This record gives sequence, C-alpha cells and structure tokens, in this order.
Amino acid sequence: MPQDEEANIEVTGFAWVPSFARGQVRDLRVRWALEEIGRDYKTRLLDRRGGREDNDPGQPFAQVPVYREGALTLFECGAIALHIAEKDERLLPKDPTQRARAIAWLFAALNSIDPMMGQLQDIDLFNRGAAWTVERRPSVVKQLEKRLQQLSETLGDKDWLEERFTVGDLMMVATLRGLKPDQLSIPGNLLAYVARGESRPAFQAALAAQMGDFAPDEEGVAA
Amino acid sequence: MPQDEEANIEVTGFAWVPSFARGQVRDLRVRWALEEIGRDYKTRLLDRRGGREDNDPGQPFAQVPVYREGALTLFECGAIALHIAEKDERLLPKDPTQRARAIAWLFAALNSIDPMMGQLQDIDLFNRGAAWTVERRPSVVKQLEKRLQQLSETLGDKDWLEERFTVGDLMMVATLRGLKPDQLSIPGNLLAYVARGESRPAFQAALAAQMGDFAPDEEGVAA
Repeated sequence: MPQDEEANIEVTGFAWVPSFARGQVRDLRVRWALEEIGRDYKTRLLDRRGGREDNDPGQPFAQVPVYREGALTLFECGAIALHIAEKDERLLPKDPTQRARAIAWLFAALNSIDPMMGQLQDIDLFNRGAAWTVERRPSVVKQLEKRLQQLSETLGDKDWLEERFTVGDLMMVATLRGLKPDQLSIPGNLLAYVARGESRPAFQAALAAQMGDFAPDEEGVAA
Repeated sequence: MPQDEEANIEVTGFAWVPSFARGQVRDLRVRWALEEIGRDYKTRLLDRRGGREDNDPGQPFAQVPVYREGALTLFECGAIALHIAEKDERLLPKDPTQRARAIAWLFAALNSIDPMMGQLQDIDLFNRGAAWTVERRPSVVKQLEKRLQQLSETLGDKDWLEERFTVGDLMMVATLRGLKPDQLSIPGNLLAYVARGESRPAFQAALAAQMGDFAPDEEGVAA
C-alpha cells in the first residue's frame, strides 16, 4: 500500500474538513497519481479545527497539497501531478506529441474547466442562499454547460481524451467529479468518463486513503 | 523579427477584438515565449467580425491560441508555454528542482490567480452594471486582495519568483497585468514586478506584434 511512514515523498492534506468537502480536497489528485505508478508516500495533516492557522510554508496561498521529495518542495496540484507523471510512462507518454497532448489536457482541466466549475460551486455551496446568486446562476450554468458540451464532443465515444489514460485524464476526471447532475446538464459520455476514471483501482485506493485520514466529522464541530 | 510567414510554427490569434481586449488576448503569452528564445512563428487570424463563427478545430473550446509545429497541434496557453520553454534553458532551467519550481509558478498563475481575476473581470468588464455585481464584488475583491498579498509576500524584494526569470514569471506577469490599480489594492512590489516583465524587449516585441495584427477598431463596428 502506497501510504507508508518511511516513504521519501510527503504530501500535505487536512486533518478535518466538513462532510461535503471530503473526497474533494486536492491532495486526492496527488495521491491518485502516486497510486497509479505505485509510489509510496506519507501524509502530513494540517489541523485547522477550532479556527487554528496551521499552514505549510511551502504553499504560498495557504492551501493543500504541498509535495516534498528530497530537496524539492512543490505546490499546485497540476505541477505536482506533472512532476509525478514525468517519472512513469503510464501517466505520461514518452512520444513527444502524445506527451504534449496529455499536458494540454492537464492544463485544460485546471484552466478551462475548473474555474467555471469554481464559479458554480461558489454559488451552490459557499454562497448558498445569497441574493446575488439568483441573478447570476443562469449565466454561469449556461457557460459551463456549453463548455461541457464542447468537451463531450471532443471525447466522443473514446474511453479517454487521447489514445489512452494519461495524467490529463486523471486531472480532468478529478475536476469533473465535483459536479453533480442535479446542478446542471452533464452529457452522458462525460458522466461515463468520470465513472470510468473513478473505477480505476488507483483512484479507489487514493479516495480511501484521503477519507481514512480525516478525523470523524463530529470532531470538527466539537473542536 | 520572429514573425515570419516561412516559419514552421503557427499560432492562432484574432483578426479583431474590442479596444479593451487588445494586448490581453492569450496568443500574446505564446508570442512572448517565442520572442524570449528568438523562435520564428507565423500567425493565422480567426475573424469573428459580424458574428461569424471562425473557429480552429484544434481548440476544443473555440478559443485562441492554437499552436502548430509539424505533426503537433497544441492548445491551452499554459501547455504551449511549457512546450516552448522546454526548448530553451532561458525559459526553463535544466536543474530538476529549479525546473519543477518554475512549472509550479506557471500553474499557480493559471489556477490560483487567473480564476479569481476572471471573477473580477466578469464583474468589472463583462457584466458591468448588472445588479448582482453590487452584492458580489466586495467578497471577490477581498479574496483576490488576500491572494495578491500572499503572492507579494512570497516575491518579497526579489526581481522574479525564483532565482531568475522563467516561464513561471512570464505567465504570472501576463496574468497580473490584466488587473488595474483602480479595481483593487495591488501591492507595490507586484506592480513593479509586472512593470519589470513588461519592460523586457521580448514582451514589447510580442505586444507590438499582437497589436499590429488587429484590424482597426472601427472595422469591428462596421463589419
């Protein structure tokens, strides 16, 4: 099992988050990449219960994950995923053209899909009930549905965005799975694509590891 | 001069955009990277005046830029900038740790700064005057100002985010320069950082090339 206290790779996560965020914190993406290539890692959990400021100096924006490996301290889940992917052809093809295409999808997930999703999550999760969301929501949904439709057309009937699973699919699946079908219209082939990614043993192991690291939900309330 | 009709690299841009967007369209980032390493390129301009749909099939989300080089068709300005940077140590150090850090800043610009800026530009440019923006704007400004403050503290009194200019600075400067001091409070060292980036001859050449490719502003109205 890749989670190992003797590992030379360390990944930060949170000791506790509310229920709705469990399974969505971004260290999951790093754990998943490590599981795909069978690399051991240990976790260091930041504990912010009770309003504590428990930050890692390696993350300029006070977020997780931070990745440490020898002299290297790395932040941004995209940069970490790429760094891990460069270790193993299973995540990143050696062929220069295929490699560049996989990296394009990695950036696409984080810069062309994630920001629009973030606006919808701001409305549906973090500002639920605020008056401004009523007027704003339809245009955010319209823009995001258009983009999902474009992604759906590009995916077509393929299993993965290019010839085979790459770090680009890992990040796209990890991003898209934050959307729920009751929020907006999600094309069927994208739902199947997310399910295909989530069914990978490496994803399942990463998800179980993140969930297993959280303190029980009620402790956050008590702390 | 790097813009050359015989070049084996092609970059897409727009034939016309409104005044406020000139100098901000994302092919600028690709042109800048190419100018930094002295690589020739040619442009192919998409013309959407008069409501025409002029897309490039290499861009799944109907955006610019698309980058072509031999058999490779690439999209996402981050992926293209990284691809170009990998050609030349002036943009991306060969030392593995320095290389990974430069890539972290490339992702940080696009995933930790750009999306928050996008929310403010949605308010100040694209939805100016909409009722929802009055209630929403203060929290967007507050979040973005906090992030700029964190970036400012990380930059400190250094010229660049790491030891020397890299593709990470290129993308961070290209992102931050979209913010104006009358929109929100921008730390002084970040303003100086942006000015430092914009004063590079390669940036100036790229900006002049993008501006020179646009048809006159009034043609968009007439078309």
